[in-house]
Amino acid sequence: MMPDHTIPPSNIASSAARTVFFVSDGTGITAETFGHSVLTQFELRFRQIRLPFIDSIDKAHDAARKINEAYTNDGKRPIVFSTLVKHDLSSIIRQSNGMHMDLIKTFVDPLEQELGVKSTHTIGRSHNVVDSEEYKNRIEAINFSLAHDDGQSHKSLSTADVILVGVSRSGKTPTSLYLAMQYGLKTANYPLIPEDFERGKLPSALPLFKSKIFGLSITAERLSEIRNERMPGSKYASIANCRYEVNEAELMMRREGIRWLSSTAKSIEEIATTILQEIKS
Amino acid sequence: MMPDHTIPPSNIASSAARTVFFVSDGTGITAETFGHSVLTQFELRFRQIRLPFIDSIDKAHDAARKINEAYTNDGKRPIVFSTLVKHDLSSIIRQSNGMHMDLIKTFVDPLEQELGVKSTHTIGRSHNVVDSEEYKNRIEAINFSLAHDDGQSHKSLSTADVILVGVSRSGKTPTSLYLAMQYGLKTANYPLIPEDFERGKLPSALPLFKSKIFGLSITAERLSEIRNERMPGSKYASIANCRYEVNEAELMMRREGIRWLSSTAKSIEEIATTILQEIKS
Repeated sequence: MMPDHTIPPSNIASSAARTVFFVSDGTGITAETFGHSVLTQFELRFRQIRLPFIDSIDKAHDAARKINEAYTNDGKRPIVFSTLVKHDLSSIIRQSNGMHMDLIKTFVDPLEQELGVKSTHTIGRSHNVVDSEEYKNRIEAINFSLAHDDGQSHKSLSTADVILVGVSRSGKTPTSLYLAMQYGLKTANYPLIPEDFERGKLPSALPLFKSKIFGLSITAERLSEIRNERMPGSKYASIANCRYEVNEAELMMRREGIRWLSSTAKSIEEIATTILQEIKS
Repeated sequence: MMPDHTIPPSNIASSAARTVFFVSDGTGITAETFGHSVLTQFELRFRQIRLPFIDSIDKAHDAARKINEAYTNDGKRPIVFSTLVKHDLSSIIRQSNGMHMDLIKTFVDPLEQELGVKSTHTIGRSHNVVDSEEYKNRIEAINFSLAHDDGQSHKSLSTADVILVGVSRSGKTPTSLYLAMQYGLKTANYPLIPEDFERGKLPSALPLFKSKIFGLSITAERLSEIRNERMPGSKYASIANCRYEVNEAELMMRREGIRWLSSTAKSIEEIATTILQEIKS
């Protein structure tokens, strides 16, 4: 049931997988995000172990023991990505038999020099995070985006940061949720449907807010593929219908002067980041 | 309209904000996630600039120019977090007047030594990402979690990875979406409501799936605060009612042997990571 978090290699160069640890005094998301982007540079299979919330001496010793065990079992040093802020904890980890990628020691210490101030060396940010304005904005943005998913509501559109439009299954919903969750942007989304094309007009709530509308388009071939997974053999999923809808949607966006991008070969992260760039410019 | 991405400092130590750049050949999310966790160690205000999709020599020169401009304007070297995989691009950036935190050069090069293989030095992962099984699982998990938000559907619960329960506004929805988006876990969520407490039973679809149920609880005080933001002065938000619901929900979870945790002082990232740990153990 758990998805496999092993990075899928296109070429497996070695049989025995190297063990990788992500050690953190918080969630470990930073260590893991960073570790993944480094590890994808290697076409190898890695066995990945997350060790979050390592926030005491005991837990640090426990983590060090796990690293040493992996070394014994694999016969090779595990790779250890760590973001332990407290020196006493990170030094316990560094004494274990791993190849240590200590993100804090590598970057925070030189930054203290550069900035001419000491770092706070506080563990995580958990105390402040949930009380911060930024966090509250994110939660509010998630609620807004959910309530405004798939054209469900026209309420408070004036407070939206972004309004996405596009044919059904062009990627609007995941992009909306991602913009809300990652960047705290209130993102509504509206499907462009055959009725809109027949009327030759945007959904009625939208023309007022054209400056924050972004379109998502997609190739008819890819759209048909995605729709066929949902409703195999339907007219909705047919390549002829997909061609019609995509073509009409692009015509409408062009006519209305709506900025749009193709979601065909883009991940939701890439679509979201591209929109973010557009908003700023 | 755009949320302010400046990290809110509890003490502002200096008047002029130092400029920080996040430079990437992809979305820049890794550089930014990492940069944030380093910068929160300093109680300073930073002006943050994202430069994603720097994937050509021209764009690299453009980015270097922006870094140099910030240096001229600020009179201080900007801090530059970069994840440029290609050496020719990263060397252009490194020649600019910044303090360079080159995440790839710092970690990928030593890893090549350790692993005994060359890194692929491919730009981003965009070609494979959207076609990968992992990515498809994430999108499917997001759709599942949306369809199963707030007890909307009992369909295919057997394919859920996680089922969250808790009183209204205890954090179930954002946690579900985060588990889906970040970890590809199909996460359903069900509210525990006064009717359930009167019946003294879990919502009827759930008893079959107890092994994947996790409860979220919250202090009555915090819950009342959150509910009052939505429905000020309502019975629903009153401290008496919140006390009743939280108490009943905890009694029920205890009686049914459901693992639960308090969401009171936890961010959605922390709740999600804690649940992930629990699933594994």
